[in-house]
Amino acid sequence: MLAGGDRVAVTRDEAAGLDARDPLAGFRERFVVSDPERIYLDGNSLGRLPVATRDRLQDLVSEWGERLVSGWPEWIDAPGRVGDLIAASVLGAGRGEVVVGDSTTVNLFKLCAAALALGDGALVTDTGNFPTDRYVLEGLAAQSGRELRIVDDIRGALDGAAVAVLSHVDYRTGEIADMAGLTALARDHGAVVVWDLCHSAGAVPIDLHATGAELAVGCTYKYLNAGPGAPAFLFVAAALHGRLRSPIWGWFGRRDQFAMGQGYDPVDGVGRFLAGTPPILDLAAVEEGVRLTAEAGVARLYAKATALCELIVALHDEWLSPLGFALGSPREPERRGSHVSLRHPEAWPICRALIERADVVPDFRAPDSIRLGVAPLYTRFVDVWDALDRLRGLVERGEQRLVDPEPSRVT
Amino acid sequence: MLAGGDRVAVTRDEAAGLDARDPLAGFRERFVVSDPERIYLDGNSLGRLPVATRDRLQDLVSEWGERLVSGWPEWIDAPGRVGDLIAASVLGAGRGEVVVGDSTTVNLFKLCAAALALGDGALVTDTGNFPTDRYVLEGLAAQSGRELRIVDDIRGALDGAAVAVLSHVDYRTGEIADMAGLTALARDHGAVVVWDLCHSAGAVPIDLHATGAELAVGCTYKYLNAGPGAPAFLFVAAALHGRLRSPIWGWFGRRDQFAMGQGYDPVDGVGRFLAGTPPILDLAAVEEGVRLTAEAGVARLYAKATALCELIVALHDEWLSPLGFALGSPREPERRGSHVSLRHPEAWPICRALIERADVVPDFRAPDSIRLGVAPLYTRFVDVWDALDRLRGLVERGEQRLVDPEPSRVT
Repeated sequence: MLAGGDRVAVTRDEAAGLDARDPLAGFRERFVVSDPERIYLDGNSLGRLPVATRDRLQDLVSEWGERLVSGWPEWIDAPGRVGDLIAASVLGAGRGEVVVGDSTTVNLFKLCAAALALGDGALVTDTGNFPTDRYVLEGLAAQSGRELRIVDDIRGALDGAAVAVLSHVDYRTGEIADMAGLTALARDHGAVVVWDLCHSAGAVPIDLHATGAELAVGCTYKYLNAGPGAPAFLFVAAALHGRLRSPIWGWFGRRDQFAMGQGYDPVDGVGRFLAGTPPILDLAAVEEGVRLTAEAGVARLYAKATALCELIVALHDEWLSPLGFALGSPREPERRGSHVSLRHPEAWPICRALIERADVVPDFRAPDSIRLGVAPLYTRFVDVWDALDRLRGLVERGEQRLVDPEPSRVT
Repeated sequence: MLAGGDRVAVTRDEAAGLDARDPLAGFRERFVVSDPERIYLDGNSLGRLPVATRDRLQDLVSEWGERLVSGWPEWIDAPGRVGDLIAASVLGAGRGEVVVGDSTTVNLFKLCAAALALGDGALVTDTGNFPTDRYVLEGLAAQSGRELRIVDDIRGALDGAAVAVLSHVDYRTGEIADMAGLTALARDHGAVVVWDLCHSAGAVPIDLHATGAELAVGCTYKYLNAGPGAPAFLFVAAALHGRLRSPIWGWFGRRDQFAMGQGYDPVDGVGRFLAGTPPILDLAAVEEGVRLTAEAGVARLYAKATALCELIVALHDEWLSPLGFALGSPREPERRGSHVSLRHPEAWPICRALIERADVVPDFRAPDSIRLGVAPLYTRFVDVWDALDRLRGLVERGEQRLVDPEPSRVT
């Protein structure tokens, strides 16, 4: 369709033709799209609202009102039930290896702290990793007295390492890490990897079992469309269940929880990493979002995402490269996740102008990246074509110099 | 109105008269009451759904769908904004001392772990404390090597203590702890108390500043009516902000968060205890629930709760004591929170029979307690009268022997 690296002139009609032949096109109407003129290329930050989720949340709020405490026998299984759904449809993991609850940061903390028990040695991550991943490790190093290594490439920093935290898809460049290779390399050095799947879960095929991954966390409010601040998931390979304990000994991780007995005795499975009372409304939103992804299938979503990203790259080469843009993502499609970063010295005002003057929503990442995320459940080829066309016109006219240059607190 | 300890025959008409003169009676219609025949005396476990919350959640879900990522500049302040509202209207705390987010268990972990830095010494709590409080301390003791003391009365166990975790209102008996006295006693021994306000927040007057309390956590899904699994709050007295750090170094606690820079640098205030992305839908539900409580006023709510509990005690003495019941809560109203526990050897089947055969929802606590919680925003005097009347008739007829005795997993 579109070969990476080739300069392909694609017309809008050709883009529309791709949409007409897209087997996933029907999923767009499963989402609330209240402003069809706006082109939303930030689903990698916050996914759209599924219609099913809107309805389910309304039902669940009613259920709270009607059933009150008698709802709990059904609600209480949600962390594991939704975890199993994510495991099977998104992660290539098994039943009883995934739970949903708490934030990505808290889950990272739990798994990293637990992993310290697996061996002495340093904590390792890369300078390009997502901030909270680096900060959590910094904190654990300060508290445990372990050595901390934050390096440009962890491959050279694994001697004497115990725990590495790596992102599967880089939040800036979209580059996919070699999960199998890095997991094996770390294991050869006696270290375990905690994988951060925030920017890959639901976007890129993941097979935790096949890659030998042992620990992972990930976000549900990006490609899984579970809503602002929805809870994260946490994966612990079954083989590690008996060897790891959460640092947070909470009642939801205790055997025979409602006996409320003396002495902590964690359940056998991944449920020992649960802590407090699970957020029932949020878990329903996660479940609906994951169901949509499961129905479409991650392999098909990734194939479409690759084609959408290839269109971005092709139009960048054709239209934007002459305007001072450079590709901030790998050129080879097989090395990219579901977004493309374009670098430009005026990236920040260009992002502002895109939002304010062109009704295109990208995402800015300091210092000079414009992230264009594609969410194949609802992003169309014409959306990409129109967005790049508007971006080209805007920069040609210098409109980025007409916006308020004040940096926003939230990007 | 009703004097504790006296045997007062109260007629249903007299109870209805109390409702007719109740200045808070109008609040009941601010809640969804879908089954008016059912008497719900478990608001101390899961509060009812406020009408405003139902509407707000619907609006906020729409807002997610419409605004998408552009909603964040407004949403992002919610943990502190809702925290300030709780501080002012429920806790007697100051602006910038409370944030909302994460579960009670995670927040307890954060504050207890942080408090370890204040001094060497043992971790102390009581055997009767809520399970997750005990478990969190057990875990921290195991990880830190500190001595752990779980004792019947912490008053004799404070020599050489560093951190004590105490519940303001006992989840079984409803007994109110002497917050000022115990905080001072602990301080005299060089220890800091982390107060668990789960069973008092919104139910009992709390003045953290006046009592000298320094650290506290609490639940929002009980008397604050924020929904199943809604996030908890966390209080750190301003004087301690500079001395305490969360063990979980998350990006939401970092200065200049969206610069995504290297190196962790926590914000100055209580926000340093935030970790991951806050749950926006849940925070809206907390805000609406707290607004209702603020509008009614905790002092008025407590006065009505006391009268409701006194009615329970009076009818217990009159009707239930002869049937083998014993009061499991303090008899003196000033020593009680917003629920009354009745003890009976057949408490479990009696609870089942109340639910299944009498449409009264109490709460069972092992081994032999029936908790009757009153939520003065929506519990009426006739509710209490009818519930006790149904309970009396049921036990007189021996109906507790007609229900399935199988213990439920969730109580």
